[in-house]
Amino acid sequence: MQSSRTSLRHLLIGDPLATSQQMHERLPKIKGLAVFSSDALSSVAYATEEILFVLILAGTGALGLSIPVAIGIAILVVTVGTSYYQTIHAYPGGGGAYSVARDNLGDLPGLTAAGALLTDYILTVAVSTAAGVAAITSWIPALYPYRVMMGVAVVAFVTIINLRGVRESATVFTIPTYLFVGGVLSLLGYGFIRWATGTLPTVTPGEAHVTVQVTSSVTLFLLLRAFAAGCTALTGIEAVANGVQAFKPPEADNASRTLAVMVGLLAIMFLGITVMAHQVGAYPVHSETVLSQIGRALFGGKGLAYVAIQLFTALILLLASNTAFADFPRLSSFLARDGFLPRQMTNLGDRLVFSNGIIVLGAAASLLIVIFGGRTHSLLPLYAIGVFVSFTLSQIGMVRRWLRLRPPGWQRNMAINGFGATTTFAVLLILAVTRFSHGGWAVLLILPLLVLGFLSVKRHFDHAAVQLSLDAFGAPPRIRRHRVLVPVAGVHRGVIHALEYARSISDDVTGVYVEVNPAETAGIQEKWYAWAGGTRLEVLASPYRSIVGPLMSYVDRIDDITRHDEKVTIVLPQFVPQKWWQNLLHNQTAMLIRLAFLFRRDTIVTDVPYHLKE
Amino acid sequence: MQSSRTSLRHLLIGDPLATSQQMHERLPKIKGLAVFSSDALSSVAYATEEILFVLILAGTGALGLSIPVAIGIAILVVTVGTSYYQTIHAYPGGGGAYSVARDNLGDLPGLTAAGALLTDYILTVAVSTAAGVAAITSWIPALYPYRVMMGVAVVAFVTIINLRGVRESATVFTIPTYLFVGGVLSLLGYGFIRWATGTLPTVTPGEAHVTVQVTSSVTLFLLLRAFAAGCTALTGIEAVANGVQAFKPPEADNASRTLAVMVGLLAIMFLGITVMAHQVGAYPVHSETVLSQIGRALFGGKGLAYVAIQLFTALILLLASNTAFADFPRLSSFLARDGFLPRQMTNLGDRLVFSNGIIVLGAAASLLIVIFGGRTHSLLPLYAIGVFVSFTLSQIGMVRRWLRLRPPGWQRNMAINGFGATTTFAVLLILAVTRFSHGGWAVLLILPLLVLGFLSVKRHFDHAAVQLSLDAFGAPPRIRRHRVLVPVAGVHRGVIHALEYARSISDDVTGVYVEVNPAETAGIQEKWYAWAGGTRLEVLASPYRSIVGPLMSYVDRIDDITRHDEKVTIVLPQFVPQKWWQNLLHNQTAMLIRLAFLFRRDTIVTDVPYHLKE
Repeated sequence: MQSSRTSLRHLLIGDPLATSQQMHERLPKIKGLAVFSSDALSSVAYATEEILFVLILAGTGALGLSIPVAIGIAILVVTVGTSYYQTIHAYPGGGGAYSVARDNLGDLPGLTAAGALLTDYILTVAVSTAAGVAAITSWIPALYPYRVMMGVAVVAFVTIINLRGVRESATVFTIPTYLFVGGVLSLLGYGFIRWATGTLPTVTPGEAHVTVQVTSSVTLFLLLRAFAAGCTALTGIEAVANGVQAFKPPEADNASRTLAVMVGLLAIMFLGITVMAHQVGAYPVHSETVLSQIGRALFGGKGLAYVAIQLFTALILLLASNTAFADFPRLSSFLARDGFLPRQMTNLGDRLVFSNGIIVLGAAASLLIVIFGGRTHSLLPLYAIGVFVSFTLSQIGMVRRWLRLRPPGWQRNMAINGFGATTTFAVLLILAVTRFSHGGWAVLLILPLLVLGFLSVKRHFDHAAVQLSLDAFGAPPRIRRHRVLVPVAGVHRGVIHALEYARSISDDVTGVYVEVNPAETAGIQEKWYAWAGGTRLEVLASPYRSIVGPLMSYVDRIDDITRHDEKVTIVLPQFVPQKWWQNLLHNQTAMLIRLAFLFRRDTIVTDVPYHLKE
Repeated sequence: MQSSRTSLRHLLIGDPLATSQQMHERLPKIKGLAVFSSDALSSVAYATEEILFVLILAGTGALGLSIPVAIGIAILVVTVGTSYYQTIHAYPGGGGAYSVARDNLGDLPGLTAAGALLTDYILTVAVSTAAGVAAITSWIPALYPYRVMMGVAVVAFVTIINLRGVRESATVFTIPTYLFVGGVLSLLGYGFIRWATGTLPTVTPGEAHVTVQVTSSVTLFLLLRAFAAGCTALTGIEAVANGVQAFKPPEADNASRTLAVMVGLLAIMFLGITVMAHQVGAYPVHSETVLSQIGRALFGGKGLAYVAIQLFTALILLLASNTAFADFPRLSSFLARDGFLPRQMTNLGDRLVFSNGIIVLGAAASLLIVIFGGRTHSLLPLYAIGVFVSFTLSQIGMVRRWLRLRPPGWQRNMAINGFGATTTFAVLLILAVTRFSHGGWAVLLILPLLVLGFLSVKRHFDHAAVQLSLDAFGAPPRIRRHRVLVPVAGVHRGVIHALEYARSISDDVTGVYVEVNPAETAGIQEKWYAWAGGTRLEVLASPYRSIVGPLMSYVDRIDDITRHDEKVTIVLPQFVPQKWWQNLLHNQTAMLIRLAFLFRRDTIVTDVPYHLKE
């Protein structure tokens, strides 16, 4: 069994890598942009759509409001980007929200940020995968019913790829990002030329184009909901700040310039798509993405240009999901290192990756895809809340830092971060209120539970450390007497072997026979006398035919007379058949005894196996 | 956990009984008849119906053929009864088919008979319960949809009652049998008076009375099928012969007279019910038994007399099923005693019953009831085949016995058993052929599999006995050197405790540290030097970060230099948190090591627990 498990693992994961093979390669800006911005940039694939899904509730006429809403979001993008620009320079070692918040505000805010980020990484995988699958099913609608299966398969694939170990610096990773950026910019460019020349076509309704019931008028709340919906565009914007150390020196300068380019691209693409969607008359439906509708309007039918855009979208979303597979295990390993998560999260697996974190992430994301039926639109209300929690905490942390250190120009820096913190906190409130009933409550419930979990894990480790510590430990007393009990059900080779072992570990050995049938006792005693070489045999009466009961009471009596510098060991003769099913044929008395002693302190149970040959 | 399990068991099963409380009470004939005949007599509740279910295929006109068929079966009852009369005198110690066949014909026929009987005991419980439930649902048709649930509940109830221990000699057990016999005889007597006076009414069709498609004409095959169907009346006829020792002395005489009375009652009741069913125009349907139809015709509506008959029927069927709960565990314990079944079947439980056999029987019968939807008619084709296998083997065994021992009058006795054997074998062939496609194949498949199972269990026990035997055993060599390895992941109180233990059982102790991170090694070595009191520490490099791998290779190397009179023990420091979930927070390295060594011979693994307080 073990060998087949090992070989399946080997097939999926590959040869183990030696610790010494760990490499630390630095990225130039052009690669860094590709690696760290896939998450942020790919969100333009669904953000516009989310705004439209809200506005449509007030009728088709309200869809035009998407443009002012998008402008608001673009401003927010730049604000948050500027804040992080400062963080990069302040934390050139890597300024994740967890470390910034914990460093400046203390454990609780740090853990809140960490919990929010972990939740959001899981959602990144689920949302990106679902949106990537949607790009494909928009192109080939016949696949739409299989979207959950496709989503889970994609997550499984990415999980395995990551367990094998992904070299993030590989050039192959730069391709999807630049293809997507190039594709979307070309699409928009071509669209604006058609618009300028007055030849822009409108999109024909797709098959699943259903009329939505108008249930609302244009209210402030609706606009705020639309704004909140569009805020999903900001997810992933923090990635560069987390990974400053991955850039070539001067790290902070290179990283901050990359961030500036990314923020610019994000704002332009998001605004462009929103405006173009409005011009071609795109309409929010589950079965076809807005990006696909723009492509269909401009290139008609299912031409090569259209298919290319859909494939590029699917690819960058896959890459975005892959990014979370680097971030989640890394953050969990930080938490585990600090004692807030089980130590297993810090284990480097066969391929030098944090395997346990990868597996947990893959499983959680798959579960979300299944629960939400693979629909991006259903998953999105959970998303973004966590992101804005971590944005806010990280900015507040920065404000606190400027106040504390007061370097030259700290007032201006503090003002920028303060503005960022205020804005993101305001957005967080909007998100919490407008999305509360759409699943936001679940995130707001899970966050404190996560933090509570982190704290009790930490408390357990602290207590354990104190109890295991050698400080003020006088060393255990020498064991002055070591009583060994050998329970026997008969006298056979296995028993004699066990007895021989018992006598080798102590001079104080007693055989213990539980007498179920008094007629057999004399025979056992005689055989014992012949074979046990003078070791004494205690016979325990068992009027109720229990083996474990009398044995336990006997050990209890022994324990009562055992001093703290004495030890009791139970040596269990156990014969091991060759085939597992043969175990079923024997009274599992040894197992029962083991179980009964599992919860006793201070008694040590040792199995002495005797292997049968057939 | 253990205590809650114990208390649930106590609630259901009651106080344990001491072995000395086992009693051996003897039954007078009047009680003996009640105890041993419930199985046989209760089968008249469904046997007639089964004949009608076959004949109806040739149309309503063919139902009259039930009377000659029933006469044939009554003759068969007397024939088999006479054969068993002889068996009782030949085996006053108890003449079960297993012992008679094994004694005279050898292991294979004996085991075949045993397998057939075990199968049939399971079917007895399933069929009797289903038929008992049918007696109730015939009276209260609204309960018909709940028959599976009711059946399973009844089996569970009887299982628990038997685990508590049933005193078969209790007077309460004589009541249902005599009530049923009295009730049926009164019913028939009243019916025949009405018939004689020409006032016998016919039954009005019940609600579920549907017309059956005529699919056959009256052929020899149909008549044989009808005959085979009626043979279910013979099930249970062997019970008296199995239990001779339960009678007061002279056992054989009392038992054989009881058998004669039982056979007479069985023949009369079965013939009477069949004739009366024809006279009142009873019709085979699933939703109402024939006995219920007779009662309804004679007493009209749902009068007290009618209800009484239904309740008596349900009661005797419950008792019949209860009988199997005595027979199955006893036969399994015989098989286990002879080494053909696991030893656990011979364990007397808390209440001095063979608990494991009772549980297996209850589970298997419940499963059958569920699979066959609680329909007696669907279960019956499986029944009877096993009974006739054991009848035939037991009679052939008797023939062989007369030939071997040749006591006075052996020719006559042999002729009687020979006739019995020939008849039952002929019936067995008829059953096998006519029921093959209705589920009989399953029984014919299971029987050889069971026998094969018995034989391989026996082979395993024989091999084990030889390997464990002390004959020609020169005793194991004295252990001359005992190497103890203590794998450590760090140096803390738990490790020091384990080390102290290791040093108390051998002078040859080595600490083993698997070095995953070379940067930590120096610190560990220093702490070890300070605390380990001079014990050596082996540091194993682990380039691939595995803990178990390097340890296993190290032990392999040790094993290579270990002579046959040396022993290796691995002492594992293990700290035990107070709450089970806290185990999840620690690397389960100790568990992994334990698992890895599970399949190694000759290496002994000892956990030394160190209990944390919180």
